[in-house]
Amino acid sequence: MAAIDLAALNQATPEQFHAALADVVEHAPWVADALLARRPFPSLRDMWSVLQRAVREAPHEHRLALVRGHPDLAGKPARAGQVTADSAAEQAGAGLDQLSARDFAEFHRLNDAYRARFGFPFVICVRRHGRESILAEFARRLGQEPEAELRMALDEVLRIAALRLDQRVTASDRLAVHGRLSTHVLDTRIGRPAAGVPVALVELWQGGERELARAMTNADGRTDRPLIADRPVSIARYELRFRLAAYFAGSGAPLAAPPFLDLVPIRFAVAEPEGNYHVPLLVTPWSYATYRGS
Amino acid sequence: MAAIDLAALNQATPEQFHAALADVVEHAPWVADALLARRPFPSLRDMWSVLQRAVREAPHEHRLALVRGHPDLAGKPARAGQVTADSAAEQAGAGLDQLSARDFAEFHRLNDAYRARFGFPFVICVRRHGRESILAEFARRLGQEPEAELRMALDEVLRIAALRLDQRVTASDRLAVHGRLSTHVLDTRIGRPAAGVPVALVELWQGGERELARAMTNADGRTDRPLIADRPVSIARYELRFRLAAYFAGSGAPLAAPPFLDLVPIRFAVAEPEGNYHVPLLVTPWSYATYRGS
Amino acid sequence: MAAIDLAALNQATPEQFHAALADVVEHAPWVADALLARRPFPSLRDMWSVLQRAVREAPHEHRLALVRGHPDLAGKPARAGQVTADSAAEQAGAGLDQLSARDFAEFHRLNDAYRARFGFPFVICVRRHGRESILAEFARRLGQEPEAELRMALDEVLRIAALRLDQRVTASDRLAVHGRLSTHVLDTRIGRPAAGVPVALVELWQGGERELARAMTNADGRTDRPLIADRPVSIARYELRFRLAAYFAGSGAPLAAPPFLDLVPIRFAVAEPEGNYHVPLLVTPWSYATYRGS
Amino acid sequence: MAAIDLAALNQATPEQFHAALADVVEHAPWVADALLARRPFPSLRDMWSVLQRAVREAPHEHRLALVRGHPDLAGKPARAGQVTADSAAEQAGAGLDQLSARDFAEFHRLNDAYRARFGFPFVICVRRHGRESILAEFARRLGQEPEAELRMALDEVLRIAALRLDQRVTASDRLAVHGRLSTHVLDTRIGRPAAGVPVALVELWQGGERELARAMTNADGRTDRPLIADRPVSIARYELRFRLAAYFAGSGAPLAAPPFLDLVPIRFAVAEPEGNYHVPLLVTPWSYATYRGS
Repeated sequence: MAAIDLAALNQATPEQFHAALADVVEHAPWVADALLARRPFPSLRDMWSVLQRAVREAPHEHRLALVRGHPDLAGKPARAGQVTADSAAEQAGAGLDQLSARDFAEFHRLNDAYRARFGFPFVICVRRHGRESILAEFARRLGQEPEAELRMALDEVLRIAALRLDQRVTASDRLAVHGRLSTHVLDTRIGRPAAGVPVALVELWQGGERELARAMTNADGRTDRPLIADRPVSIARYELRFRLAAYFAGSGAPLAAPPFLDLVPIRFAVAEPEGNYHVPLLVTPWSYATYRGS
Repeated sequence: MAAIDLAALNQATPEQFHAALADVVEHAPWVADALLARRPFPSLRDMWSVLQRAVREAPHEHRLALVRGHPDLAGKPARAGQVTADSAAEQAGAGLDQLSARDFAEFHRLNDAYRARFGFPFVICVRRHGRESILAEFARRLGQEPEAELRMALDEVLRIAALRLDQRVTASDRLAVHGRLSTHVLDTRIGRPAAGVPVALVELWQGGERELARAMTNADGRTDRPLIADRPVSIARYELRFRLAAYFAGSGAPLAAPPFLDLVPIRFAVAEPEGNYHVPLLVTPWSYATYRGS
Repeated sequence: MAAIDLAALNQATPEQFHAALADVVEHAPWVADALLARRPFPSLRDMWSVLQRAVREAPHEHRLALVRGHPDLAGKPARAGQVTADSAAEQAGAGLDQLSARDFAEFHRLNDAYRARFGFPFVICVRRHGRESILAEFARRLGQEPEAELRMALDEVLRIAALRLDQRVTASDRLAVHGRLSTHVLDTRIGRPAAGVPVALVELWQGGERELARAMTNADGRTDRPLIADRPVSIARYELRFRLAAYFAGSGAPLAAPPFLDLVPIRFAVAEPEGNYHVPLLVTPWSYATYRGS
Repeated sequence: MAAIDLAALNQATPEQFHAALADVVEHAPWVADALLARRPFPSLRDMWSVLQRAVREAPHEHRLALVRGHPDLAGKPARAGQVTADSAAEQAGAGLDQLSARDFAEFHRLNDAYRARFGFPFVICVRRHGRESILAEFARRLGQEPEAELRMALDEVLRIAALRLDQRVTASDRLAVHGRLSTHVLDTRIGRPAAGVPVALVELWQGGERELARAMTNADGRTDRPLIADRPVSIARYELRFRLAAYFAGSGAPLAAPPFLDLVPIRFAVAEPEGNYHVPLLVTPWSYATYRGS
């Protein structure tokens, strides 16, 4: 769905307004109604805080309906193409459309147990989680008290809505819903950025991995674009992989055969999806250092 | 075979002497004869240099016979148990007794090509090489001129002999045939050794890996014994794996959830089997550094 | 003297043009004449390359006169206020207005020796040098052949002119005559920028020092402005001084008494005045690292 | 005074025993008497624990007399040569024999204030402190309650005694009264120890400094002996100074002119005189790292 400008939204007819925001909060047109009554919005953050209050202060049945409007995670409707386009894209982004039969069965079992306990589906903002983290949250939240769990489900509904709103509406400000993962490579043997070093970013999980980005360092030792930007950095385990032997050979450094360092893996986990993760590599042919920088 | 002391060897009857050294240079009793004539040896290094000269200065047919006395690498006699105990143990140490059918066929093909070209088997001191390195050497040496290759084969025969001699004969000195691979973990957050950190050393090759050692750091942040010592460190790729999250949690460091660092892999290659590879880890919950130290 | 815009210069009357550029090349109005004839200039770099060629291709007497137009370094005219405002400011920037009697005598001696050998004064772009470097250049250049030395003097005349031109004329581009010296402090104990750390930048020379900048790190662990920017970073020795104990105490890190680290000095030399020197500090209460970064 | 063996002490006549230990606890022969009664001692630690208990359990007047037996720090008797040889050597070791007139006056003032408040001289084990630390302790202890301060003075008497006993008596064990300060230099550009690097260790204080040790790194990148060993490492501020430019030039590294790094100062403070301070330097021509290691 095309983005719409905040100024246009402020002027739109109720029908246009509803159409534009239809899926920000799934199956809950009363949220758009609440927003309509409060126009114009000077900023996206202002619109967002109105939406948030409207949801949190809605009557219990409304809030419950809101949670119930969400589809099961990795559920049969998702498989059968019966969920909103947003839901489908978000679940695919977390790799939930490619589960093995065993993982699919596990999700099915957890969904059933969760529904049986709470009477509503398990809602989680999947764009903020890798698959290990989704399963960990599933297990953790199954153990909560129903009232606390409804609040938590609503928090997730709002996180999903914030991401959709930020994506759908352009304005001079943005919501603080994005993180960033970047790197740079510095050759401390010569005190200069290392250019032309291949870098890959891989997400890891028990028993598998998938490559998320692949790039080459430029003259500044950075990648032209951050490895992850303009979206949350999922709570997950990652590995950055740098290939150094060809770079060092090309820079004239004397190397052992085979070279002491070639593929350098840096493994780390992300805990704040909206955080800024700068993970550089300071390297010589015989040493390296890394850290979470800024 | 039990070790024998140099002093005893200096006094031994010719029969005892031959028996003790029978397998130092496979199927070549004339080498032991050459040594017998030069007793007594004040040191093992002295004995070794006599042996070396005897071999290098032997007539061409003797040298050729010496190389021919060695079995094929990963060959059928090795599989059938028809090689000396030393050869069998050395080949097993490099994992050559556990090759897949495909790798076995590759070795078979290379052995045949090599024999066809040079008229003698491919000899290499397998204790100095991992399987990737053996294959790389095989390919490289197949391309050499026959005269150069005979010299190279003899170098390998002598390397094998040096390791066997050093193992068989105890003396106040030792031959410089061993390397060392060690680590230590320093917690730079508190300026103290990190005790109780699990460490594993793994050999890597295209498509596989095997664990070579597993240890826990002690109060000095070191392992009680070096991860590799008293033998050559094979030319190969390695990964050290440190598990840090439990250590940091136990030391009271505030951690993210999941922690930024847990399993830290350090991947490097060894090029000098007789070298000293000290590869430490300087670490905080948010950074680390490593280097080849001493 | 106020800056003038390139567009205005392109339109200026010859009198205005001469007035604006009078001191870019001291006492050499023929340079401005050469530029006048080539207007309009699309960019400052374009103007600069015309100026450069005009000077390099001028007849020998013109070039010699140009060099002769410069005052002695730290000479009596400078002391007596008889040099152009630009020269005075530049010499003061390098601390040459505050020489001890002994250093003043040394400059006097070198100036006389240089004039006696070459017949023109020693010209050097003092904004690119600290006082140790000026003396080293003086000694080195005294040993050159006259023809080579005239070329070198002219190079320095042009460097001085480039800096003055870049300062005097505003345009959409700038000349590549500036360097940059900056730092940042990262607390690798917690993986965050260290805010509120006092930093001082000091120039060092044999027997003395002077503070060039003093700042406090902000929430990004950086100083609000680079420590040096918009001017060359003089060829000189420097020391960055970070005060860490109060920062660490405030961040809740357990410290020894006295703390292992408090004032951390990082001493380095600059060799490229137009270079980018980013010299960060990665620090815990028990360790630190620094490097020339980018 | 020559050292004496524990076995000999166990057999010595009372006169010999008294003579040998006369100055371990200044002017308090009753301490030697207490030891005499408990011979033989299987180890030095055993002898030490008997001594310690004897002192701590002595009647109040004895303990007071023990403290009173110590001379003023940097006092007139010390200047006039009227203190025991041990006291004189210890005070000189801390540089107290070379105070400026102003510092001498300050010590005099503090001694008088202390005596006026507590009725006994200020006793401190000067071998465990630099001059800044002595003054800081002086100020701190002046503020204590008399009973607590007598205990503290006695602690210091015992620390002095332990160091003297360890020095005077040889045995198969030693008392844990010594610290250690050492370094090593690793060239991470080539993964090898940096040999031939000049290192100096300097003690710093407000307004002054003195060189404590000077050495050259050997083939292992270490100094042949630790910079401080077999004595406490005084509580003080230190600077290690490494000279690197000549080393790097000699090792063939391309360097800027002037080189980015030459004299590298590492400034730190010692808080545990009996601790092991290993402070290495990992360095390339463009970067370095240091830490408290082990």
